[in-house]
Amino acid sequence: MSRLRVTVWSENHHERHEPAIAALYPRGIHGAIAAALSVDRGLEVRTATQDEPEQGLGGGLLESTDVLLWWGHKVQGDVADAHAETVRRRVSEGMGFVALHSALNSKPFRAVIGTTGRSFGFRHGGRELVWTATAGHPIVQGIPHPVIVPDSEMYCEPFDVDQVEETVFISAFDGGEVFRSGLTFRRGRGKVFYFGPGHEEYPIYHDATIQQILRNATRWAAPEPRPTLVVPTAPRDRDKPVGWFAGSPS
Amino acid sequence: MSRLRVTVWSENHHERHEPAIAALYPRGIHGAIAAALSVDRGLEVRTATQDEPEQGLGGGLLESTDVLLWWGHKVQGDVADAHAETVRRRVSEGMGFVALHSALNSKPFRAVIGTTGRSFGFRHGGRELVWTATAGHPIVQGIPHPVIVPDSEMYCEPFDVDQVEETVFISAFDGGEVFRSGLTFRRGRGKVFYFGPGHEEYPIYHDATIQQILRNATRWAAPEPRPTLVVPTAPRDRDKPVGWFAGSPS
Amino acid sequence: MSRLRVTVWSENHHERHEPAIAALYPRGIHGAIAAALSVDRGLEVRTATQDEPEQGLGGGLLESTDVLLWWGHKVQGDVADAHAETVRRRVSEGMGFVALHSALNSKPFRAVIGTTGRSFGFRHGGRELVWTATAGHPIVQGIPHPVIVPDSEMYCEPFDVDQVEETVFISAFDGGEVFRSGLTFRRGRGKVFYFGPGHEEYPIYHDATIQQILRNATRWAAPEPRPTLVVPTAPRDRDKPVGWFAGSPS
Amino acid sequence: MSRLRVTVWSENHHERHEPAIAALYPRGIHGAIAAALSVDRGLEVRTATQDEPEQGLGGGLLESTDVLLWWGHKVQGDVADAHAETVRRRVSEGMGFVALHSALNSKPFRAVIGTTGRSFGFRHGGRELVWTATAGHPIVQGIPHPVIVPDSEMYCEPFDVDQVEETVFISAFDGGEVFRSGLTFRRGRGKVFYFGPGHEEYPIYHDATIQQILRNATRWAAPEPRPTLVVPTAPRDRDKPVGWFAGSPS
Repeated sequence: MSRLRVTVWSENHHERHEPAIAALYPRGIHGAIAAALSVDRGLEVRTATQDEPEQGLGGGLLESTDVLLWWGHKVQGDVADAHAETVRRRVSEGMGFVALHSALNSKPFRAVIGTTGRSFGFRHGGRELVWTATAGHPIVQGIPHPVIVPDSEMYCEPFDVDQVEETVFISAFDGGEVFRSGLTFRRGRGKVFYFGPGHEEYPIYHDATIQQILRNATRWAAPEPRPTLVVPTAPRDRDKPVGWFAGSPS
Repeated sequence: MSRLRVTVWSENHHERHEPAIAALYPRGIHGAIAAALSVDRGLEVRTATQDEPEQGLGGGLLESTDVLLWWGHKVQGDVADAHAETVRRRVSEGMGFVALHSALNSKPFRAVIGTTGRSFGFRHGGRELVWTATAGHPIVQGIPHPVIVPDSEMYCEPFDVDQVEETVFISAFDGGEVFRSGLTFRRGRGKVFYFGPGHEEYPIYHDATIQQILRNATRWAAPEPRPTLVVPTAPRDRDKPVGWFAGSPS
Repeated sequence: MSRLRVTVWSENHHERHEPAIAALYPRGIHGAIAAALSVDRGLEVRTATQDEPEQGLGGGLLESTDVLLWWGHKVQGDVADAHAETVRRRVSEGMGFVALHSALNSKPFRAVIGTTGRSFGFRHGGRELVWTATAGHPIVQGIPHPVIVPDSEMYCEPFDVDQVEETVFISAFDGGEVFRSGLTFRRGRGKVFYFGPGHEEYPIYHDATIQQILRNATRWAAPEPRPTLVVPTAPRDRDKPVGWFAGSPS
Repeated sequence: MSRLRVTVWSENHHERHEPAIAALYPRGIHGAIAAALSVDRGLEVRTATQDEPEQGLGGGLLESTDVLLWWGHKVQGDVADAHAETVRRRVSEGMGFVALHSALNSKPFRAVIGTTGRSFGFRHGGRELVWTATAGHPIVQGIPHPVIVPDSEMYCEPFDVDQVEETVFISAFDGGEVFRSGLTFRRGRGKVFYFGPGHEEYPIYHDATIQQILRNATRWAAPEPRPTLVVPTAPRDRDKPVGWFAGSPS
């Protein structure tokens, strides 16, 4: 059985411009996430970054990706509209999409979800408690309740999203704010998971629990195998009058 | 245009057995809620309580109810299974159902929603902040963000519900707990709203904002008028062979 | 890995009262369906019938059933309300439910789906073409397009159901009538599939394609395994003030 | 109260190149539909066609459209990708979209729905019976059951769409084919209705029943008014630590 083809896309901007972030993530945020996913030997993981040619999204990369993870923050607004549209189309065709932290502001997330993705507010620092809202969900398998993120960035409801499938995690912050930090969506044939924690100044993606959530989410978002429609080879005699044309089967 | 027929059902147990609660709610919790709803002149409001004959649910009451509100806590477990089934059936036929606070443990709520309705934990006292999660929802019209409930009872995720339609409110509590305190559901043809705040020891239902939420929710849960299917009076000649029987149209 | 525990429930009325039906289904409709399912060695299949003690639904049968198939027509209206409620509760807990043909008129189907289940009309005889509407669905795997049922019973839209998950099959009949003959629903934690063809006067359940659909549907309706919520053993120090009580985790 | 701003977009290709179509639709298909809609005095209707500058979709037209109707067939594939994306974005913002007949092959429909929109087959000529599947739906108000289209074009399941909200109409054709000819979808904040009948060689849009369906659908697809989020003007004292920034409210 072939492995699941995973692409971790990240801006790679903070890492190249801020020494503190480079020191925290020597292989980049994308590298840390890719390493965490690679623990699952059934995943074939590669990275792509915005500073690469074609912003890391050209060359048929998305056509050969089963699950895309996306981390962006400061410069993801410069991603070409055409790339965002490619992500949207691939999700509708079945590619999984795991949007992390500030990816809620990205063009792909907005195109896929169909809303602005805005959070009502934000604040750097302070603790986040990530509570499981849907106990039976595959994404929460093996995850403690709550997950404690000692230093995080607060987001606050209302979270401008629509047609949520399941609420998997809800977070509380020091100021009493709440935010749906784990949400699943279905768009076309694709499965989408938004996961909130991930501010670049904190070692969040080095945390074992966070890494387990990412592995669970990537597995969950995998495209579902689809049976082929069986069409009878001989036309049904009286049911195929002159002029019956076959269109393209789904 | 006829008014919306609303029934507020409550246990009326604490009020009759605990002087502090009787003092806080001289007309009963049901009376306080009914008075708050009656501010909307388009609502025709009555109350029913568990200490009445047939537990307040007999005599065709539910057949002539458009929206049912339910508050229960200590003795609602004694409500007859048959009454819970009647609520479930009426909701499937289109009756609105607004379940308040500990109603999540009631037989009707469980039958309607299809799960246990359990909260992961609870604690008396402390503040609750009720945040709007879906900014455009009719139930939040005119409601501040967040709503502050100075003394409340904590509930905590996971909240054992399923097939949620919309998350309208999410609450945070002093210990960092979170709970989806405003949820809509569709069951059959009926609309259901669960609203969390409402512990009997605190004057929650005397609060003007809470009262506005209840009015908004009652209006939102109203049965939707449904057009009639137009059936041609003459049979289509070649399409109605001998033996074609009409069933009951929806 | 344990086998899926399947119960095929049927009235067993026509078989005992009408020689033509007894001749067509010597082991009963339930026996024919059970034999077809047993081809799948991962299914552990038993039958139950309305003429047995407790209408075949007592003795904890449903508690130990993973997927229930239901065929009824003439006397299923005599099934006790309590048994219908047990089916509804078990479905909400995760039991799969495959409702066949006139089961749309049964108390369990109505309780589970939340509507009357009525068809707009019916006519005995004539051909049914069962077309796949959702090409990728697991239930249609290996199924030709369309399925031809040479002698069948016409049902006609509108089909009084609500909150349909997927339309899997749609049938056309000789008079130009249409009916959604394959529908999936989610109710609570359970998965429900309605399948239309199955009039007792025709050898429908002896057909290899129909039998494959029943095997696919039974597998599809299997309860999904659910992870356990991991709760930290030590309370979080400042977050568990005096009076914090654990409720029941989901 | 302001009127609903409706735009009827059509290719206007057959009308300009085929005398038979020009004779059947002297004001164009768009003109016939616009006239039918204008019977509803609450609708402010304009037309736009592909042969106009910017393919009829420039100049902020979609920004000032509440409901867009789309008829295309032969040359709609030449519509610019950017216009399709504008339709998709406007629908996600709340613009209603009524896609007619071969619009299922259009770039906007594919972008909005997220699938290819393909029909399994097609055949010109023969009768179509349009049956109501959801009796209570606003779109079917006043519509006979079934609607008879004496000359039509057959489409056939599977219809490659996903995440259908409601099945409103299902059609049967002379060869026994079936097709979901009336479907509603929600995409972002917008409401979408697909309606099947409309082949240009037949006077379908001159039919009074078809015209009533289009008026019902246009009204149904209207953007829903949305309440404003009320934000307290004074920060909550202890809940707004230094560094709390307001993001953009939804």
